[in-house]
Amino acid sequence: MVGFSAAVIRRQQFLLRCLVGYNISSKNLSYTTIKMQSLVSGGSPDFAISILRSITPSLDSSRHKGQAGKIAVVGGCREYTGAPYFSAISALKIGADLSHVFCTKDAAAVIKSYSPELIVHPILEESYSVRDEDKKSISAKVIEEVDKWMERFDCLVIGPGLGRDPFLLDCVSDIMKHARQSNVPVVIDGDGLFLVTNCLELVSGYPLAVLTPNVNEYKRLVQKVLQSEVNDQNGTQQLVSLAKGIGGVTILRKGGSDFISNGDAVGAVSAFGSPRRCGGQGDILSGSVAVFISWARQCSAKRELSLSPTVMGCIAGSVLLRKAASHAFESKGRSTLTTDIIDYLGRSLEEFCPVTRRDK
Amino acid sequence: MVGFSAAVIRRQQFLLRCLVGYNISSKNLSYTTIKMQSLVSGGSPDFAISILRSITPSLDSSRHKGQAGKIAVVGGCREYTGAPYFSAISALKIGADLSHVFCTKDAAAVIKSYSPELIVHPILEESYSVRDEDKKSISAKVIEEVDKWMERFDCLVIGPGLGRDPFLLDCVSDIMKHARQSNVPVVIDGDGLFLVTNCLELVSGYPLAVLTPNVNEYKRLVQKVLQSEVNDQNGTQQLVSLAKGIGGVTILRKGGSDFISNGDAVGAVSAFGSPRRCGGQGDILSGSVAVFISWARQCSAKRELSLSPTVMGCIAGSVLLRKAASHAFESKGRSTLTTDIIDYLGRSLEEFCPVTRRDK
Repeated sequence: MVGFSAAVIRRQQFLLRCLVGYNISSKNLSYTTIKMQSLVSGGSPDFAISILRSITPSLDSSRHKGQAGKIAVVGGCREYTGAPYFSAISALKIGADLSHVFCTKDAAAVIKSYSPELIVHPILEESYSVRDEDKKSISAKVIEEVDKWMERFDCLVIGPGLGRDPFLLDCVSDIMKHARQSNVPVVIDGDGLFLVTNCLELVSGYPLAVLTPNVNEYKRLVQKVLQSEVNDQNGTQQLVSLAKGIGGVTILRKGGSDFISNGDAVGAVSAFGSPRRCGGQGDILSGSVAVFISWARQCSAKRELSLSPTVMGCIAGSVLLRKAASHAFESKGRSTLTTDIIDYLGRSLEEFCPVTRRDK
Repeated sequence: MVGFSAAVIRRQQFLLRCLVGYNISSKNLSYTTIKMQSLVSGGSPDFAISILRSITPSLDSSRHKGQAGKIAVVGGCREYTGAPYFSAISALKIGADLSHVFCTKDAAAVIKSYSPELIVHPILEESYSVRDEDKKSISAKVIEEVDKWMERFDCLVIGPGLGRDPFLLDCVSDIMKHARQSNVPVVIDGDGLFLVTNCLELVSGYPLAVLTPNVNEYKRLVQKVLQSEVNDQNGTQQLVSLAKGIGGVTILRKGGSDFISNGDAVGAVSAFGSPRRCGGQGDILSGSVAVFISWARQCSAKRELSLSPTVMGCIAGSVLLRKAASHAFESKGRSTLTTDIIDYLGRSLEEFCPVTRRDK
């Protein structure tokens, strides 16, 4: 913990205290295996739920379309269409008013056909469909199309089903730069993390960037940023170092427990969850985190929050997904799929934050 | 209220009386904030439901396909496919016999995939797919295709997911002119309102035109027609002035309460509803209003109605959507989506106007 300020220590104490349900004295605040285990096995869900509840807006008849969140997912190519759909539909199911997808032409018709609720823009292009001499003009057109909408979005999700086509990733880099100029938060997952790991300056020092790596994506980030291997003996400290190493972006490290840090505060969510590891759950998470970040930012405009909006958004998104996954697994067992989990998002949110409490 | 005829005053008294459930004397008929509030908070649903009931046709084994309504939605482009689907399927779910969609080629396959119930015509074109020298001939072909069907339609819905492509909007202007020549009612929403606000003569003075603006669309209409800002202190009077300013078209101003005027009568529907503001609810409304207008016109051919068919159609469509939205919200809470509301249209209509009452 060398080099950590007293304020950081106090914040971490607060978080850890809430998470494990008892006070941890300063002298015990070393991130040892024992502490990690106590977080994982003993972590109380109450803190995460209270965060979710504190940022979820009350519903009110005087509000109009858009005020509960406008989210956009950048992803979806010739190969992948499910991931951007999962992310975008999850945002709506949690309570966003509008959910857009920016994807390739090949992907658009398919994603549209999954649900009439999404607004799908077929604007991205992959190298195979673009001549070299046209790349510049097409690239300019892509960013022009996205810019028409940028200011209206409360959060972008970059990466679900994006693929790794070099030309497409160049266009997405431009989109990320414009998002940053417009101060729009970005949640980066999947192939978006591949892009960012190879080009850290896209997010470095941007406090509204959130990375949501899984085991392998986290490993590559640690190797790139810290020039070391993942060290689970000292996992929380390494996470903090990683977040600081990318200039204070927020990292949600997904796993049996989810660990969250922006290089300052650190939190863990270990409650609920499911042993089923079907593909697509990370997409639910990215869409959910995007909505909760936009809600947390609305709150932060009105009152001081105990944590940064991005960290709160990650904690809320994590605990909600884990709750929905546990419900789905209870009902479907081994055959649980991502769509089953999405079906439980509404009920899980209702359990944490009942509409009847404030909105009827 | 200066300049209003005694007949208008009497009509408004009737409406207000029914809506708030008690008599309002002439001297109190100034549209002050207090009156607005009494309409909003005290509005009884009985009047709106009785209007819905009075125009909904009884079902009768001797009737044949088409007699309960043939609706067409003009909308659906490369970006938007959900909106025209929501509008067209809602018309069917309420009881229309046939529901068509006129959209671009890109949109058609997707809209068809949402439901085999719809008849989808891929006839519109956007600028990007048309060479300048072909525009005239394509434009002529579009109108020729629509004209084949025009006389058969009981109502057109113009605008859901239309987009704002200039060439496409030019073609839609032609469709609107032909609808008017054929005396076919038009319900205008979404990008159709963008078109009409920029070209008021398309609807000005056409008593079978209905505009269904949301907050922002209403604001632009008021600015264009009345050269002023929206004034909620005097909202009902401003709505009446706006409707008169466009030559007696019917306006359904959507919001926490829906306000309806054709420059003569004025009504409000504030019962039921939901605090969820997910995109797409306006599309349900436009499809519903189209069906109810066609039913109200059938009634008006047989007997004198207390209000114009367009106003009655708006009131019926509004109260039905609000009822379905309240059911969906009760069931799904924050995760309510537009498709959930559509699922409740049939049950809501049955509650207001049971089939068993007259049709068994």
